[in-house]
Amino acid sequence: MEEYSKADVLGVYAANMFGITNYVMLIKGLDWDDLVLPIYIGAHEAASIEWALKGYVHKRPMTHDLVINMLDILNVRIEKITIDAMIENIYTATIFLCKEENGKKLRYTIDARPSDSVALALRAGAPIYIANRLKNYAISESSINLMESEE
Amino acid sequence: MEEYSKADVLGVYAANMFGITNYVMLIKGLDWDDLVLPIYIGAHEAASIEWALKGYVHKRPMTHDLVINMLDILNVRIEKITIDAMIENIYTATIFLCKEENGKKLRYTIDARPSDSVALALRAGAPIYIANRLKNYAISESSINLMESEE
Repeated sequence: MEEYSKADVLGVYAANMFGITNYVMLIKGLDWDDLVLPIYIGAHEAASIEWALKGYVHKRPMTHDLVINMLDILNVRIEKITIDAMIENIYTATIFLCKEENGKKLRYTIDARPSDSVALALRAGAPIYIANRLKNYAISESSINLMESEE
Repeated sequence: MEEYSKADVLGVYAANMFGITNYVMLIKGLDWDDLVLPIYIGAHEAASIEWALKGYVHKRPMTHDLVINMLDILNVRIEKITIDAMIENIYTATIFLCKEENGKKLRYTIDARPSDSVALALRAGAPIYIANRLKNYAISESSINLMESEE
């Protein structure tokens, strides 16, 4: 089995739990069959991912737009992002940057949260990969639909 | 009169208006006497600026921390930020980046919102400048204290 699968962002959803609204991003490895990984993220990060998914453009650059503008002007490309591990109940991710300088490709990796990584990857059109070992935390997509219909 | 003054961030404050919580960042040109400029910003940006002012470090990199980590690894420095103008009721700012490449200093400017610019400048220890013409929108600091004591 490959260590990573290419992944899709199914969407971000608000989940009301004990009167508090939490936001969850659903990520699906392309060969994960019915399984999706729910990752809890902040409200602002959820909005930013939603804007990217819907192609919504703000009048002024929002924070992740600013990052993309910075990388563009610096001639740095996001090659891919990977969602790697769950450490102390927190998912970790990596952003892979690439820059050509004097005909050489320079590569950099940066530790990041999955939410920022996905918000940037969607804007940059960069592929998203997910570690297959995270399937252990995945749930079946059909069980989520069931939860929604019970509301 | 100089076009720009060096500026300080006095802080970010929550202001309750008609039942809605708004966040305002107070910026003061160093030679502006009693005047401060209130700039309304988002809740998430307000929190990020507050964390930078208080030196609060998160377990995982928050979005503006991530930007700083990216610039660090790319060997790019934030030289300064400027808060420039009010256009259609929205304040605009500029982030000045500098990178040494083959012994040459390359400079880049990026259009940004004041909130992101300040959140990054505080983390990078970069100076903040404010256009003196924005004094037109400034209010006296003592009037703000008065508002707070009326609550």
